[in-house]
Amino acid sequence: MPQAFTVHDYADRMARATESATRAGLSGLVVTPGPDLLYLTGYQPVALTERLTALVLAPDRPPTMIVPRLERPDAQGATGAPALTLTDWADGADPYQAAGPLLDPAGSYGISDSAWALHLLGLQETLPSTRFRPLTRALPMLRAVKDDDELERLAAAGAAADETFRSILSVPFAGRRETEVAADLTRLLLEYGHSQVDFTVVGSGPNGANPHHEAGERVIRQGDTVVLDFGGLKDGYGSDTTRTVHVGEQAPDEVRKVHEVVRRAQQTAFEAVRPGVACQEIDRVARAVITDAGYGEYFIHRTGHGIGLTTHEPPYMVEGEEQTLVPGMCFSIEPGVYLPGRFGVRIEDIVTVTDTGGRRLNNTPHDLGVVA
Amino acid sequence: MPQAFTVHDYADRMARATESATRAGLSGLVVTPGPDLLYLTGYQPVALTERLTALVLAPDRPPTMIVPRLERPDAQGATGAPALTLTDWADGADPYQAAGPLLDPAGSYGISDSAWALHLLGLQETLPSTRFRPLTRALPMLRAVKDDDELERLAAAGAAADETFRSILSVPFAGRRETEVAADLTRLLLEYGHSQVDFTVVGSGPNGANPHHEAGERVIRQGDTVVLDFGGLKDGYGSDTTRTVHVGEQAPDEVRKVHEVVRRAQQTAFEAVRPGVACQEIDRVARAVITDAGYGEYFIHRTGHGIGLTTHEPPYMVEGEEQTLVPGMCFSIEPGVYLPGRFGVRIEDIVTVTDTGGRRLNNTPHDLGVVA
Repeated sequence: MPQAFTVHDYADRMARATESATRAGLSGLVVTPGPDLLYLTGYQPVALTERLTALVLAPDRPPTMIVPRLERPDAQGATGAPALTLTDWADGADPYQAAGPLLDPAGSYGISDSAWALHLLGLQETLPSTRFRPLTRALPMLRAVKDDDELERLAAAGAAADETFRSILSVPFAGRRETEVAADLTRLLLEYGHSQVDFTVVGSGPNGANPHHEAGERVIRQGDTVVLDFGGLKDGYGSDTTRTVHVGEQAPDEVRKVHEVVRRAQQTAFEAVRPGVACQEIDRVARAVITDAGYGEYFIHRTGHGIGLTTHEPPYMVEGEEQTLVPGMCFSIEPGVYLPGRFGVRIEDIVTVTDTGGRRLNNTPHDLGVVA
Repeated sequence: MPQAFTVHDYADRMARATESATRAGLSGLVVTPGPDLLYLTGYQPVALTERLTALVLAPDRPPTMIVPRLERPDAQGATGAPALTLTDWADGADPYQAAGPLLDPAGSYGISDSAWALHLLGLQETLPSTRFRPLTRALPMLRAVKDDDELERLAAAGAAADETFRSILSVPFAGRRETEVAADLTRLLLEYGHSQVDFTVVGSGPNGANPHHEAGERVIRQGDTVVLDFGGLKDGYGSDTTRTVHVGEQAPDEVRKVHEVVRRAQQTAFEAVRPGVACQEIDRVARAVITDAGYGEYFIHRTGHGIGLTTHEPPYMVEGEEQTLVPGMCFSIEPGVYLPGRFGVRIEDIVTVTDTGGRRLNNTPHDLGVVA
């Protein structure tokens, strides 16, 4: 078990977030329930509801969190609670009127990407001159650079996903439904210490050509190419890895060819990782390998996404993302080729940026795995 | 198994929603993933992510849904998909530029309460003169009035929750942790046909005085008063019921007294249900009973919430809610009294509005249950 985060960790994170907001030209931050609030305070309400909960960070006041009165005891129990001022509003009151005095009416705030439109519109109505920007646009780096304790958790989650992949190679594929293999992936992820499984993609044959196919009723056959993409949370941090396997030894030439193209794209992108490189450059080098091989039009998604308290977060490895890589960032590199109606191939590792390059947090072989 | 909803059901719902929007003075609706989108189209993306998915309903065009390109095959598979026009945007493109032409730049739209601030701010930036209102403020009735097929599902979910309560009366309480009884509730809800458990509150002794306490490590003792509040989804529709029980026959006088006050409050509120009555009136009559008995300051939440595809939705039985009741509405009536550090009592039934009054969808006895 990793060390639990302490109230000091949360106080430090809130202080750093407030400084970052100031440096970004913001008056402060409005953080609603979700991974940002969990990161900054350790607080996660029992349920996401229509009731406003918001942490306000600004340089001119202590961190203040407004919560529904009946959730106050829960909020008080959060590890980070002693480092912030709690205030509440009661059912029947207007929560935006209650939150208003916490904000500068002429200010500009970063607000959680996933804050509800209901709450943003309520704040905009109460504070018509206050401006809001999405938190990941204003402060994309808020959670992007992981500290050593976080890296330890991400590496452990990656190792558990790798164990899952090694074990899945020995379960039967031919003659079973995708959903049955997906259930095996779930069972293994939990067995290797995950507390939550977020996705278990088993894309066999033509289903592999839909990158967001999860797992369906299709019965896997001898000769199928199968995309396996799975992950979830272990000790609060995410895993996400993809390997493509073939049912039986005799993979057709085009499957081998496409797999080798994707493998080279993944490797080339990995080798491009180092501090100072723009995120979009990682996408470009992966895409160039695939385009040069003639499959560019079949690589229909970005090359990667950040990972941490969630399995999908900034930084994104996508054209147009000029953010540069910083040591401690963690993200996926997952190029793929999808031939409609035929098959798909994807290879994905989580990678962290070191002082001099990249380090993989997934370490199973990149060759076309063989299953029975 | 209830009848599956058809493409015609979804087409009808979209048409009615568009008409309601027009009647409410709106140019149309912007509906993002969640229960509203599920209600209108049958579509639920595999995961809620930062990628924009939005259904636009307006009287001057066919229903149109914009989705991320790589999720298009999933969207095409939704039951309601044949009744709408699909369009997409690719990774790297600006989804708000792509969605912009679907909206009237001078228009006024209802947007899903839970739409991400990221998306609302993106739309506001692209369409600076377009106005947005929270969907539940603009059209609180969108999903509030249930049709017969929906009522059938809600009644079945309520009956399954009632079976769960009857069964939990025979499990041991004294000497076991709250979390163990909560696990029994989960097991029973699933056994009686729920596909998903949303909450299993076991608030024993002083924990019962925190209305949002779930279940903790406290060991339940002889003589404890225990609040049991549980529910989830069965065939896509919600259950939610609360009963308060006592461990052993000998409940103290004040527990009996408070329980009787709460029982009368619940009964009085139920008897006030009929078409045309304002939601806040249901709250007022429940609160009056409790206030008259001297416990007003310990009833610290609203009296109820709607239920349907979610376990928490409009209409809300709360002071200030002037919406009048309409046959087919379904909501909880759940007054409670919470004596800090001592115990809590709550009684909750789901009630539907009939042509002449109310009908309970929970039907277990309202007396103080006895457990061992």
